[in-house]
Amino acid sequence: MNYAIILHVLGWVLKIESACMIMPLICAIVYKEQNSIYTFALCIIICFILGMLLTFKKPKSKTMYAKEGFVTVAFSWVIMSLFGSIPFMVSGSIPNFVDALFETVSGFTTTGASILNDVEALPKSMLFWRSLTHWIGGMGVLVFLVAILPLSGGDNMYLIKAESPGPSVSKLVPKVKSTAKILYTIYIIFTIVEAVLLLCGGLNIFESLTLTFGTVGTGGFAITNSGIGAYSPYVQIIITIFMFICGIDFSIYHLISMKRAKVALKSDELKGYVSIFIVSTLLIFFTCKGLFRTSGEALRHIVFQVVSLMTSTGYATTDFDRWPQFAKTILIMIMFVGACAGSTGGGMKVSRIMILIKTIIKEVRICIHPKNTLKVTMNKRFVEHETVRSVNVFIVSYFMIMAFSNLLISIDNFDFTTNFTSVLTALSNMGPGLSKVGPTMNFSIFSPFSKLVLTFDMLVGRLELFPILILFSPYTWKK
Amino acid sequence: MNYAIILHVLGWVLKIESACMIMPLICAIVYKEQNSIYTFALCIIICFILGMLLTFKKPKSKTMYAKEGFVTVAFSWVIMSLFGSIPFMVSGSIPNFVDALFETVSGFTTTGASILNDVEALPKSMLFWRSLTHWIGGMGVLVFLVAILPLSGGDNMYLIKAESPGPSVSKLVPKVKSTAKILYTIYIIFTIVEAVLLLCGGLNIFESLTLTFGTVGTGGFAITNSGIGAYSPYVQIIITIFMFICGIDFSIYHLISMKRAKVALKSDELKGYVSIFIVSTLLIFFTCKGLFRTSGEALRHIVFQVVSLMTSTGYATTDFDRWPQFAKTILIMIMFVGACAGSTGGGMKVSRIMILIKTIIKEVRICIHPKNTLKVTMNKRFVEHETVRSVNVFIVSYFMIMAFSNLLISIDNFDFTTNFTSVLTALSNMGPGLSKVGPTMNFSIFSPFSKLVLTFDMLVGRLELFPILILFSPYTWKK
Repeated sequence: MNYAIILHVLGWVLKIESACMIMPLICAIVYKEQNSIYTFALCIIICFILGMLLTFKKPKSKTMYAKEGFVTVAFSWVIMSLFGSIPFMVSGSIPNFVDALFETVSGFTTTGASILNDVEALPKSMLFWRSLTHWIGGMGVLVFLVAILPLSGGDNMYLIKAESPGPSVSKLVPKVKSTAKILYTIYIIFTIVEAVLLLCGGLNIFESLTLTFGTVGTGGFAITNSGIGAYSPYVQIIITIFMFICGIDFSIYHLISMKRAKVALKSDELKGYVSIFIVSTLLIFFTCKGLFRTSGEALRHIVFQVVSLMTSTGYATTDFDRWPQFAKTILIMIMFVGACAGSTGGGMKVSRIMILIKTIIKEVRICIHPKNTLKVTMNKRFVEHETVRSVNVFIVSYFMIMAFSNLLISIDNFDFTTNFTSVLTALSNMGPGLSKVGPTMNFSIFSPFSKLVLTFDMLVGRLELFPILILFSPYTWKK
Repeated sequence: MNYAIILHVLGWVLKIESACMIMPLICAIVYKEQNSIYTFALCIIICFILGMLLTFKKPKSKTMYAKEGFVTVAFSWVIMSLFGSIPFMVSGSIPNFVDALFETVSGFTTTGASILNDVEALPKSMLFWRSLTHWIGGMGVLVFLVAILPLSGGDNMYLIKAESPGPSVSKLVPKVKSTAKILYTIYIIFTIVEAVLLLCGGLNIFESLTLTFGTVGTGGFAITNSGIGAYSPYVQIIITIFMFICGIDFSIYHLISMKRAKVALKSDELKGYVSIFIVSTLLIFFTCKGLFRTSGEALRHIVFQVVSLMTSTGYATTDFDRWPQFAKTILIMIMFVGACAGSTGGGMKVSRIMILIKTIIKEVRICIHPKNTLKVTMNKRFVEHETVRSVNVFIVSYFMIMAFSNLLISIDNFDFTTNFTSVLTALSNMGPGLSKVGPTMNFSIFSPFSKLVLTFDMLVGRLELFPILILFSPYTWKK
């Protein structure tokens, strides 16, 4: 294990985190929040000094193998979350360590689940930092690092591989560094466009920026106790559109920018994503339209909710926990499925589900003719055997982690629906669940132990299991 | 598709069913139940005549390929269930078709879920037939057919393969026919021993036979409204022991009878099964012992419940729906896992879960060293790639069917716990669930549509998905 390179990258992660904290510091200065100014200034200095110490000595070998790649990504996210929670604790906004860590991990992993009973009691700069963590975690800090750092050769592909969601990472262009740059460029453009559109809707800069961070990172932290329900239909529609856009594979936008829209729109995953959206919306609409005053209002809320949950954002404009069980079951199903691979969204990803369904069809055919040698295809290309296998193992691991997390948090003795949807929402990086963790509730009810279990699940979900799981394998640490 | 051979086998299935109905007919004669005597006499004649018509003409070709094997097994179970439900309808015990079918499928698949509010209102002969279906379905009617019928060559292995539970069927001896005979011999010995032991406990012949059928088939139909709770500790302990025994791979008993006990006891699956039993019992004991008067009583009930659910029998001596959530979550987990492959129990099977865990460990190692070529082992032998793949696809299909069944029955608007555990208990061939389908409740609350969905799930669960799934593939019916 090349520890030198791991520490080097961790140092850079801290330096970037320190740079990111300048934004909430500015916010604190603008809103004259004395306490927050000191807090962020202190945190910036701590992160910067530690970062400098770690990056001071250049590692002899810059090569990174798969093992180092996964370990680096896992540790980066842990370090980032630990230091990211310091402002909440130092300022006294969230004095308890477990709570502050839960909230920060929920932010970076773009989950958006909160332990806060009264969000509005927080200083504006703290809310800003809280929402900014969504933006940082959405595209990923390692992807950013790869874009700016002079790391060696093609081996840092493992960093992107471990951090980016989806069954297989396609390099958009031959060079990893350029791929990372393109991804961040698209991400920044979406951020600016949405923020401007929200400004046009009458929101102030603070509101439009925080809501934009929550949307494009598919995070879901709200800055008011009433969520998104309090905003105008215009704002709700803008947010719906950008959640939907950010749940799509970013390589599609790259293809469109290269004037290859025809190829882009033929993507099987995109078709699947749109189909799930339409079918779910229609089914819920016919089940729930009676709950709203007009069909138009029903459609707005239902589309918002479906998009919010299928992209794993988790914003809510209405209390969907009161919908009929049929509608709630559809919501649970789309929570499982999640968004597209290569997007900022969470869940199992549409392409994985599609590969699985195709694998099942293949297996049925093999039952009929055992000597068949069929292959699964996506976008008219054969899916590699490796990918099919790892997708299958992914799903199985997902359910196993789900089962064990359910067992661990059941010690708190809440009902099965609460436990099941809490774990699901954490693993899918969604935010709200049902019953006691429904859209109008929060996660403060859980014991510190359960909060740690859910924090773990959020990290495991964001990094798609294996980068975190390998930390627990003795095989990783063998010489 | 060789339709002639399929119809031929279906004919034999009907003839066997007709023969099986002689037992409840005798029961009706003994208890002087006039109505039941006519009913069973009529059903015996109908099944026999239809069976004779179908088997009258010998098919030209007796070869059976995988396709015919699967289709035959699937249709046999459907036919068997349809004709098995006739006595309930004709006698007026369960006049409604959907209810009668649900109850019969629940019997044959050894699920033991009931739609009856008052079991004791049924005539004794009907209760006898209801319990006998467990016994017939436990080892499987096709296995029986293979044992007695002069079907051709080695190709009828597919029949056993499609009907027997587990990721891979091992022939105990080179000849399929002898394998089937050995399985039934062991099954009959267990049945006789348990029935005698229960007779010694003071039960009458009717009680001891029906309870034995429910135990060795790991079914779970009770003949009293209070389940097994009303019987003496002796009876409860005998039932516990035989549930446990019948949840173990029957090939282990064959090995023991061949004086190869050392090999038999080294089985990885057996170790897994025993470990799950011990760990679950201990965890639940420490959580729940306060609910009982003495530790001894607690242990008896908890061991009974754990064994009953891990073997997918579903008998209850206590209302475990009132246990703390932690204990209930363990119960849900062992409901998923189920018994050993090659036993009469249901669920996903211990060996499948073990293969999956090993696959995950392998995948983690592949993440660390992508060029690794590791293999999964069971009983110190490599598990074939085919088996690993089909186990993975099995689990994924299992969850997909679970999700869609949940969605369909959610139309009835019951709570999530009820829906989730109803589908789980149907797919695992367990019996009781939690909440509104807890051990003191029954399935009569559901709409006919939901009952049909759950009936389908029981069949799919018993035949381990694929034999039923291939009926829906257009590929099966292509010429």
